[in-house]
Amino acid sequence: MKYILLVSWLFSMLIIFSCAEQIDQAEDPLPSWNDGKTKTSIVDFVNEVTNEESKNFIAVPDRIATFDNDGNLWSEQPHYFQLQFAMDRIKTLSTAHPDWQEDSLMVAVMAGDIEKILAAGQKGLMEIVMRSHTGITTDNFETVVEEWIDTATHPRFNQPYKQLIYQPMLELLDYLQSKDFKTFIVSGGGIEFIRPWAENAYGIPKDQVIGSSIKTRFNDYNGSPFIERLPQIDFIDDKAGKPVGIQKFIGRKPVFASGNSDGDLQMMQWTASNTLKSFMLYLHHTDSIREWAYDRESHIGKLDIGLDQARKKGWTVVDMKKDWKVIYPFQLDQ
Amino acid sequence: MKYILLVSWLFSMLIIFSCAEQIDQAEDPLPSWNDGKTKTSIVDFVNEVTNEESKNFIAVPDRIATFDNDGNLWSEQPHYFQLQFAMDRIKTLSTAHPDWQEDSLMVAVMAGDIEKILAAGQKGLMEIVMRSHTGITTDNFETVVEEWIDTATHPRFNQPYKQLIYQPMLELLDYLQSKDFKTFIVSGGGIEFIRPWAENAYGIPKDQVIGSSIKTRFNDYNGSPFIERLPQIDFIDDKAGKPVGIQKFIGRKPVFASGNSDGDLQMMQWTASNTLKSFMLYLHHTDSIREWAYDRESHIGKLDIGLDQARKKGWTVVDMKKDWKVIYPFQLDQ
Repeated sequence: MKYILLVSWLFSMLIIFSCAEQIDQAEDPLPSWNDGKTKTSIVDFVNEVTNEESKNFIAVPDRIATFDNDGNLWSEQPHYFQLQFAMDRIKTLSTAHPDWQEDSLMVAVMAGDIEKILAAGQKGLMEIVMRSHTGITTDNFETVVEEWIDTATHPRFNQPYKQLIYQPMLELLDYLQSKDFKTFIVSGGGIEFIRPWAENAYGIPKDQVIGSSIKTRFNDYNGSPFIERLPQIDFIDDKAGKPVGIQKFIGRKPVFASGNSDGDLQMMQWTASNTLKSFMLYLHHTDSIREWAYDRESHIGKLDIGLDQARKKGWTVVDMKKDWKVIYPFQLDQ
Repeated sequence: MKYILLVSWLFSMLIIFSCAEQIDQAEDPLPSWNDGKTKTSIVDFVNEVTNEESKNFIAVPDRIATFDNDGNLWSEQPHYFQLQFAMDRIKTLSTAHPDWQEDSLMVAVMAGDIEKILAAGQKGLMEIVMRSHTGITTDNFETVVEEWIDTATHPRFNQPYKQLIYQPMLELLDYLQSKDFKTFIVSGGGIEFIRPWAENAYGIPKDQVIGSSIKTRFNDYNGSPFIERLPQIDFIDDKAGKPVGIQKFIGRKPVFASGNSDGDLQMMQWTASNTLKSFMLYLHHTDSIREWAYDRESHIGKLDIGLDQARKKGWTVVDMKKDWKVIYPFQLDQ
């Protein structure tokens, strides 16, 4: 009899604790977000569409949430981190390419001369991507990215780039996942550059990462097959490419979209056109002290038409300075 | 006190029943598969790689299983079901295209003259696909597919095409999913033809369907955005395209691959090259009475080099006639 009572007591405790945990989480699913309109609008949306009694209830398979990466899940200043990866890679490869010393763009890359690189425009950037990202198997490229992401550090914060992810966005991803949203990255960056580390950093599986890609080719080399990365663009997952990428990879219109630049505008429009209730979240970089402040005039992550549309249509705009208690995870203990 | 006893008893019953169910499932996860070498090899593989004590244990994120669709998850005779869809669609559209009466291929399609259609070769098939699958928004195309799959019936079995899925493969999908494998369709068929019904038929979400695709374009038409299907091939997910599609959409090498034709051979080779223990399953159509029997000489689902490689490399070959107790779900009650 004593044993039965003990078991009953244990079960009761179990139930009480699990309820307590739920209440606790319900009280503040986004601890690094300051209380206010932004946080409330997110929580209200999630509560409404996951409530079976609501007329705006969304069934689990339709809970698709898409997130831009650069400047939205991690920083993108003073230049895209993938460009830094490309520059570092070209430096490494240059010992085998003495002819690059004759190429003014390659010389600028090896000298880290960002101004000269940006002056070379889209064509110059493409050449840098092709020289640094192709002519390698997909397996080997993954290893190269993993090594870089584990070792390269950001000059301003003296932290690995993979630490420059946004703590409040990690909480938002967790929160949505806990409410059975399937979360995807939809990035203009390279799909095979993001995948090797996104799973650990964001808890987003590789097959839920969508990005720009180059063409590849399968080879069955003497029974040791490999996939070769070719110097040709396959798909640009930016601007009008984002809805196309979403339809191609997910096959469903999102009900939640999060981005920070005009490159995300079409993803927002596509999401806003969902017949189900949807939520559009624009991150506005307003914090020149803790991160960076930039929008309409920026060469990186330009947010101009998107900001106007967001205000006009009542989409939620995150004011980084005002809405976020902390920027990066490594600042939590400080 | 009585209440406490009742609660304890209820909990005990709950535990006993849930354990009983687990044991039951462990005893026969594949009830429609006859006992024998094939079934044993599948179950042994799954047990081994999901056993944490085993040196061949595979962590959950790496449990990627890829399945061909036509002739592997559902039938593909007397011709691919998607071709029948295309023919039916052309018949529907023909009233608005009187000029098609002058086109010998379109006349053959409207008359259901399969021999003439096949005689037109790859070029003819492409034209049929373009005329039936493009010039429509992605949303509308989904509706068209849904309507067809809900109403069209297969002439031999007088059943909706969506009922001609293989009961033993449904059990295999369930079994793998219950062991935390992420299951994907990797089909030569059209990605947007499969997605509308795969979720209900197979329990595979839309974003876990990979297939051939045409190019699409995003349009923000007066604030009512749509994606338009263009008459241009984007990607052929067949033969050497399958590993490319897997790498593009999943970003991971499978540990389990299942197919039935030479079109799946490169997917098998790619899977077999995994450094983790992997399992290759070829379905051999050997049942001329209950389904169809075909392999080396077939125009549809030709299995020739694949069969030789499977035998040489010790991959598992399902003998449909011998290994399967039943073919389709609607035969379970018969």
